[in-house]
Amino acid sequence: MRRSIATVSLSGTLEEKLRAAAAAGFDGVEIFENDLVASPLPPRDVRATAADLGLGIDLYQPFRDFEGVGDAQLERNLRRAEAKFALMLELGTDTMLVCSNASQAALGDDARAAEQLHRLAEAASPYGVRIAYEALAWGGRVDDYRHAWRIVSEADHPSLGVCLDSFHILSKGDDPSAIRAIPGEKIFFLQLADAPYMAMDLLQWSRHYRCFPGQGGFDLTAFTRHVLEAGYTGPLSLEVFNDVFRASDPHRTAADALRSLSVLEDALGRERAAERAPGEPGADGARPRASLTRLPDPPADTGFAFVEVAAEGSGAESVRAVLGALGFAHTSDHRSKPVQLWSRGDARLLLSSTDPRLGHTWSGDAAVTAVGAEVADPDRAAQRADLLLAPTLPRRRDPAESRLNAVAAPDGTAVFFCADGRDREWLDDFSAAAVRDPHPGGDTAVTAIDHVGLFQPFDQFDEASLFYRSVLGLEPDASLEVAAPDGLVRSRALSSGGGLRIALNVSVLGRGSRADAAGGAQHIAFACDDVFAAAEAMRAAGVAPLTIPDNYYEDLAARTDLAPAVRERMRENGILYDRAGTGEFFHFYTPMLDNRLFFEAVQRTGGYTGYGAANAAIRMAAHRAERTR
Amino acid sequence: MRRSIATVSLSGTLEEKLRAAAAAGFDGVEIFENDLVASPLPPRDVRATAADLGLGIDLYQPFRDFEGVGDAQLERNLRRAEAKFALMLELGTDTMLVCSNASQAALGDDARAAEQLHRLAEAASPYGVRIAYEALAWGGRVDDYRHAWRIVSEADHPSLGVCLDSFHILSKGDDPSAIRAIPGEKIFFLQLADAPYMAMDLLQWSRHYRCFPGQGGFDLTAFTRHVLEAGYTGPLSLEVFNDVFRASDPHRTAADALRSLSVLEDALGRERAAERAPGEPGADGARPRASLTRLPDPPADTGFAFVEVAAEGSGAESVRAVLGALGFAHTSDHRSKPVQLWSRGDARLLLSSTDPRLGHTWSGDAAVTAVGAEVADPDRAAQRADLLLAPTLPRRRDPAESRLNAVAAPDGTAVFFCADGRDREWLDDFSAAAVRDPHPGGDTAVTAIDHVGLFQPFDQFDEASLFYRSVLGLEPDASLEVAAPDGLVRSRALSSGGGLRIALNVSVLGRGSRADAAGGAQHIAFACDDVFAAAEAMRAAGVAPLTIPDNYYEDLAARTDLAPAVRERMRENGILYDRAGTGEFFHFYTPMLDNRLFFEAVQRTGGYTGYGAANAAIRMAAHRAERTR
Repeated sequence: MRRSIATVSLSGTLEEKLRAAAAAGFDGVEIFENDLVASPLPPRDVRATAADLGLGIDLYQPFRDFEGVGDAQLERNLRRAEAKFALMLELGTDTMLVCSNASQAALGDDARAAEQLHRLAEAASPYGVRIAYEALAWGGRVDDYRHAWRIVSEADHPSLGVCLDSFHILSKGDDPSAIRAIPGEKIFFLQLADAPYMAMDLLQWSRHYRCFPGQGGFDLTAFTRHVLEAGYTGPLSLEVFNDVFRASDPHRTAADALRSLSVLEDALGRERAAERAPGEPGADGARPRASLTRLPDPPADTGFAFVEVAAEGSGAESVRAVLGALGFAHTSDHRSKPVQLWSRGDARLLLSSTDPRLGHTWSGDAAVTAVGAEVADPDRAAQRADLLLAPTLPRRRDPAESRLNAVAAPDGTAVFFCADGRDREWLDDFSAAAVRDPHPGGDTAVTAIDHVGLFQPFDQFDEASLFYRSVLGLEPDASLEVAAPDGLVRSRALSSGGGLRIALNVSVLGRGSRADAAGGAQHIAFACDDVFAAAEAMRAAGVAPLTIPDNYYEDLAARTDLAPAVRERMRENGILYDRAGTGEFFHFYTPMLDNRLFFEAVQRTGGYTGYGAANAAIRMAAHRAERTR
Repeated sequence: MRRSIATVSLSGTLEEKLRAAAAAGFDGVEIFENDLVASPLPPRDVRATAADLGLGIDLYQPFRDFEGVGDAQLERNLRRAEAKFALMLELGTDTMLVCSNASQAALGDDARAAEQLHRLAEAASPYGVRIAYEALAWGGRVDDYRHAWRIVSEADHPSLGVCLDSFHILSKGDDPSAIRAIPGEKIFFLQLADAPYMAMDLLQWSRHYRCFPGQGGFDLTAFTRHVLEAGYTGPLSLEVFNDVFRASDPHRTAADALRSLSVLEDALGRERAAERAPGEPGADGARPRASLTRLPDPPADTGFAFVEVAAEGSGAESVRAVLGALGFAHTSDHRSKPVQLWSRGDARLLLSSTDPRLGHTWSGDAAVTAVGAEVADPDRAAQRADLLLAPTLPRRRDPAESRLNAVAAPDGTAVFFCADGRDREWLDDFSAAAVRDPHPGGDTAVTAIDHVGLFQPFDQFDEASLFYRSVLGLEPDASLEVAAPDGLVRSRALSSGGGLRIALNVSVLGRGSRADAAGGAQHIAFACDDVFAAAEAMRAAGVAPLTIPDNYYEDLAARTDLAPAVRERMRENGILYDRAGTGEFFHFYTPMLDNRLFFEAVQRTGGYTGYGAANAAIRMAAHRAERTR
């Protein structure tokens, strides 16, 4: 299907917006009127610039407060419209979005509205312009797409149809299935936007918090399916008002936007394929069908192959010391690169002195630089990632070494696609040397990597969520907020059925050293059979867990029925506790290593699926207290 | 009255919060439970630290979801409460806030709630603890202060009273006057918070957007008056959940917070004094009266004495060139400092090559460094500012020169208090030399300074609003948002009856170079009798106004009935237009001078009181286009 984006979704001047949309691969744009009015480019030059870039102009929008007015106002509104039709001729676009009158003073008389829209369509015809009438969620008289369609039906003019906008329908919890009752050829335009669920005034929510499909909470696949089944074959167009995107690099936002449409089309195509009985022809014949571009299958049940940490000097020393104390052994070395494999059970950590993305020697604080994801078909995963505009990372390797595809996540973390199953081809690149360092930790310790926590650049939080969802097939949880000593941190976890879990964190205000210092850390959490034993073994090996205040345990005594002996053992080992339903979660942290990296050990029981978010503020305060001690 | 602040209102560790509250001059704090639980300080040490700092601990809060529960849960809740009472003994605080059960599963049985709260109060008594019961605005069964008071009345226990929180009452638009019906001695605690009006879920609004009294839209003076007239004599305590304050310097926030209470007490004291007939005694005898600290009278009808710009080299040259073209003349020089006075009508601009705040030579882009405010009594204004914790600026001067008091606004702008009236003593410091430079502008040009626009550091937007309101006696307008090419800008204007107007702008996200570049500019707007003539004179003098796109004038033609000849004259001169009711506003801008300073000329007719906000996005895009040309 044709893919478009409204200029209001991108930052910059109109020309910069056009360039970014074209660079990402969009077919067309909606011109947001304010962007044109503020532009030094005359409409004819905008048309030429767009054409040079290979972009069509699919919509001019919005035209406000037209219908449901008195006769004198109607004449003024028609005059205003004529000026815009003339402009659209120069702009080379044939569809104008007319949104329902937002004024409470609008007249609630459908016959009048229909008659007035008929007049507008009649006035538009000589210019070759079509009118797409849209029900705003906060419309004064018309705020429901069925109502808009009734008025359009009644007006009965070939140049008049409806525009559907997912936000205006889904934000109100409205049922989109009646869209199927609208003839596809009368759906003149389709605008798509997702949004996180928020208890907020519709207008404010719409103007500040829209996001791209797959980044929020709406079911855009189901919504779009209704529109396609109505027979709509026009563009899929994104209209996203978002405070962050307005202030971010438009090229990056445009790529993110296009990715969201690729994922949406792919999901729709999969549904359609699944519906079809074998041997049956694709189309039902009754209504036109939009063609849907498909992607290679997404990875499923992705697991951790490894997590890579780059460190140097004393930072690397402290990582090694803590891994040893957690029962990890330095089991082998990479054949050609300065990378050590440390492992314990199914937890594999690569400790490197180079940056896997740039190849050069690592300098700076220890940091997570790569996540190895075990997938059924690494080549297919890489191909899918490429079609989703994930930047491919060059991977220098010796001919004898295994081929590992890697792409860069939005925060720069390298994501490697590794074959799952027993062979683990990538491990062949490591010498089968005997265990180099003994592991002083006991036997009942780490079994696997449970999750990775990555602090995100402010601008890339939604982008990262969509990236991991679409590239690795992870499912996101709802976002939540944690009060760090220096500001709020937003956190959103994504997980696969195969045990790969990534928690993304971002400063809610996203600025200033204090906001960064509060939560800028990264961490790797290891799953344990017995987290108490793991903590005690680590302590015995000389590494103290992060000190948790006694006040925490006093509070735990007041609000839980944990046995005093258990609480005492927790206090001795800095172990924290969470509960959800029948599930329990016990976990402890290491001190901060080399400024921004720490480890966590966790034990899940009774089907606990969270991350101990209730304790995150305690952890952040404790890590901060370490720094000021 | 005693002044307190909840630790949740400030950023940092518990100890840092206590230090900041003490440094600002608070008498006490509310300990927010999460702050204590995350602190390494045992309760006894918290008490000792607070005592050393001269702070009392006035409240422990919150205790949640206590009442309206089944019998088994009640026993668990009482056990939890007992642990907290023991903790409060160590902490040395005698009042616990119990907020109404927020669960929808709470039992809606007032008799049961009263009985359970009675049991809680009975359990609290041996510890010397009082229970202050508060209706949360989103309480499951109890969400109204009258309802909470009915339950407390029914429970009838000497250790049980109510806590009133302005947010929970005013956010719902509730009438606070029934507070007077509650006996003052049963109001155990008073929490104050303001908030901007927002159409938002109450819980989200409360957790993220509260602010200090005078910074939002609530009438805290009226609210607090009801509480005092009920006979409340306890602390005025601030409980403010705010994303920005959570991430800002706590010392600064605490000073801002204390300022808000000083202003509130002063306003209440003024009301009380005004009520009193001459010679009548202060108290009515029936109920106890809290004593209210008064400040010197606030300035009224403040006007502009001058605005000072510091510039060097080519920056200073370009400022002089544009001032000349706007009809300003360099009329005199300061006797002892490198400061030129440029004037035209009642518009006076000081052009300095030093920083008035630091005294040293200015280096950097041209910038507004000072605002001279004409007030009736400069000494009184300075004294009031001092009591409002405004930092006093040292002012080196020769003995023969006039004494000018100055304080620093939150963004660092120096605010001078100048005597109004005809004499303008401060002008005596300038030589009465003849006009140095002729002014090429025509006669019908600038008459006065209309307003100053100052871009604010992100953390200081609310603080600045309260500063100008309380120190200069300005009245704030509502905030509005402007879509700059690189992100949203929030704008809030404040004005006096005497013609002093300041527009404060801030980036909505407040971070990154793009966000700053979008709107980081400062400007000085001059009032004109005939803005067309002013623009033409400026052009004739060789300075072109900021280029406004033709598209703007096309849009104006479509949506207004301005005569074509007028529109054409506007287009030639880059003049923009706004309308509100019968008022009209014509204005033009200069290009950006020296990166971040520009001038504006405005003409108001028909009682127009705005600032042409509808055109601000056009202006920002045009200034940005200049840079990329």
